[in-house]
Amino acid sequence: MRAEVVAVGSELLLGDAVDTNSAHIAARLAEIGVDVHRHTTVGDNVERIEAVLRGAVDRADAVVVTGGLGPTSDDLTRVAVARLAGVALERRDDLAEYLYGYFGRAGRAMPESNLVQADLPTGATVLRPVGTAAGFALTVNAATVWCLPGVPGEMTVMVERDVVPALRAKSGAATTVSRIVRTSGMAESAVGEVCAPLVARLDAAGNPTVAFLASRGETRVRVTAKAATRDAALTLLAPVVAELLDLLGPNVTGVDDEGVEAAVARQLKHLGLTLAVGESITGGGLGARLVSVPGASDWFRGGLITYATESKTLLAGVAPAVLAEHGPVAEPTAAALAVGARERLRADVGLAVVGVAGPLLQNGLPVGTTCVGVALPDGTTPTVARRLPALGRVEVQDFAVSLALDVLRRRLAALG
Amino acid sequence: MRAEVVAVGSELLLGDAVDTNSAHIAARLAEIGVDVHRHTTVGDNVERIEAVLRGAVDRADAVVVTGGLGPTSDDLTRVAVARLAGVALERRDDLAEYLYGYFGRAGRAMPESNLVQADLPTGATVLRPVGTAAGFALTVNAATVWCLPGVPGEMTVMVERDVVPALRAKSGAATTVSRIVRTSGMAESAVGEVCAPLVARLDAAGNPTVAFLASRGETRVRVTAKAATRDAALTLLAPVVAELLDLLGPNVTGVDDEGVEAAVARQLKHLGLTLAVGESITGGGLGARLVSVPGASDWFRGGLITYATESKTLLAGVAPAVLAEHGPVAEPTAAALAVGARERLRADVGLAVVGVAGPLLQNGLPVGTTCVGVALPDGTTPTVARRLPALGRVEVQDFAVSLALDVLRRRLAALG
Repeated sequence: MRAEVVAVGSELLLGDAVDTNSAHIAARLAEIGVDVHRHTTVGDNVERIEAVLRGAVDRADAVVVTGGLGPTSDDLTRVAVARLAGVALERRDDLAEYLYGYFGRAGRAMPESNLVQADLPTGATVLRPVGTAAGFALTVNAATVWCLPGVPGEMTVMVERDVVPALRAKSGAATTVSRIVRTSGMAESAVGEVCAPLVARLDAAGNPTVAFLASRGETRVRVTAKAATRDAALTLLAPVVAELLDLLGPNVTGVDDEGVEAAVARQLKHLGLTLAVGESITGGGLGARLVSVPGASDWFRGGLITYATESKTLLAGVAPAVLAEHGPVAEPTAAALAVGARERLRADVGLAVVGVAGPLLQNGLPVGTTCVGVALPDGTTPTVARRLPALGRVEVQDFAVSLALDVLRRRLAALG
Repeated sequence: MRAEVVAVGSELLLGDAVDTNSAHIAARLAEIGVDVHRHTTVGDNVERIEAVLRGAVDRADAVVVTGGLGPTSDDLTRVAVARLAGVALERRDDLAEYLYGYFGRAGRAMPESNLVQADLPTGATVLRPVGTAAGFALTVNAATVWCLPGVPGEMTVMVERDVVPALRAKSGAATTVSRIVRTSGMAESAVGEVCAPLVARLDAAGNPTVAFLASRGETRVRVTAKAATRDAALTLLAPVVAELLDLLGPNVTGVDDEGVEAAVARQLKHLGLTLAVGESITGGGLGARLVSVPGASDWFRGGLITYATESKTLLAGVAPAVLAEHGPVAEPTAAALAVGARERLRADVGLAVVGVAGPLLQNGLPVGTTCVGVALPDGTTPTVARRLPALGRVEVQDFAVSLALDVLRRRLAALG
């Protein structure tokens, strides 16, 4: 089975936004054995969208389109697909009703113009909306055109709920399965070096294949196998994953979905410990990353955002003498902040991060300087200082969150 | 002048990597007045690359290709372009010499196989390599095909040094400039409705054009003008931007780079007020968004992350009676939390957000329920309750941050 992916949106064509939807869809289709031969991006122009889709339905069995399903005049995917299929748009009463309900529940009156989101090409199958945009599927010639909203959170739901099950049933071909070994606290090149002999062996054999993907503070190693069935692919992957876990040892946070925050959550639950945070450089980003994990209320108590130097004393009881001697960005300050967070929130463990996010130096310290402190149940307060790459303000803050979580993860691992 | 952008690489097609090159190239071409009508991504397959390029040279005056110029067997762009043009590949002695020198300087022997990087289609103009991969330009039919390496650091050099100057000379010097009017607290369709008469007028005239871009809690209106010079384009845009500011009034946070957090930062600085936050649902995300603004230390004091219900009393002094009567997600609780944050951090203004992020209901309240409280210098504590779209946990948290910032922004605007 052959598929193509089409992204609609002038913002993509003008380079105002990067298309991440197509990669997500392509990866999911590959996993179910659907060959994706082409991605195309086209702007908000009905003739050009139609022309792109006409080419795609001539070549492929399935075409997955994202974007252009919003309520405004530049949302043209519905019109283009109707033209492609030579059918009219028709108002779907159930969708109209849904839209009135959606706005009503939010306590707002629906603008009349929003009803265009209830107009679909005649004969299309509705993909139930997640937000306001319904998706739809329509067969044109021998191909099925799947139209999904461009909003990633809505698109991914429809991919899993509607597209993947339908295409999996039809594809019946070989399956591509990937597993991801996730590490934190180790540079990509260091991970690559450790894995080099394994990679050389895999390259020679050809299946599974391996790829390295790095983002701030995390390096992921993806191994991908192709086989007749999912089980056969997993069997090919198992020894490679085991070897990677062995090679990378304590740097591994988990496999597949388990990044460092999920690893910390699992450790805290396992140990029956609660956590509080104290943050300066990250302004709340450490807590935000932790509460992104579902069920965080089982182990996360809360935290102190001590951004102004004075607030470190006000909120966390950091002694003015410590601040006077070491300054706001220092290991003793991070330790005192961790202790303060642990005590004020009556948690078992405190985790604190201070640093220089930039764009300016602070007290002569360069951008990227970061100190992490941990206050453990036994009263000890280990600290770590690190100079992170001075990329940009938000990047340094993100990286500082990852570093703090990795420091905690390694400490909790030592507790058993 | 019309252009298309083509990215070559199976890693992109499989979703193992996101193509950021195409957006970069498209943005640069737009700036010099070249219309990009399509981006296509194709895998490492010589027939399919050739087919994609054949379509592109039929439609466009310039085709900019990235990727497939490496030394390995899956680097097929050189071969595909030679087939497209009906010419042979020929070894370029100067490039071969460059490659020997490049490896020699790195103290390594060059694998013989690397010499394929010195083989270019007959008649091609060499684009001097940055790493080991030479780019090249070749005219096929009436179009020029520009082939650049996929490595972003090498691609960007050739775009600036070779592609942009050549295309600028040909494009007749028209330029495309965009300005973005940013709104918060208003649904995309409502923005669209307010702007509909303006859009209809602009659509009829054709230049400038308008597009709407929505993300959680924000709707951006982008107006794009084409003119002979940047100044002329800005002159065309000025009355449209002014009309949008007028139409959208208090919903506008700013123009171009100014989103809601930057607007709040500007307001606080202007009013000479400091801010403290109290957060539950967002776990620190509100503070993190605020400290993403450079210079936040001028007006941001810090905050209280009161995730566990008990911590609302412990840290912020929310009366147990309030919690008992209203529960943790309620307007009086948000108001009390804002007051607590303001007092504990000795700030002028307190801003608090509580809510239900999911995946489960909380005290019978549906996912997305969000309450914002503001504690103002005059002692008043206005609150807002809203049911946000229940997309996913992280999406609800992000949207709650945007809502809180928008509520504060409107209150600060009222202070003058």
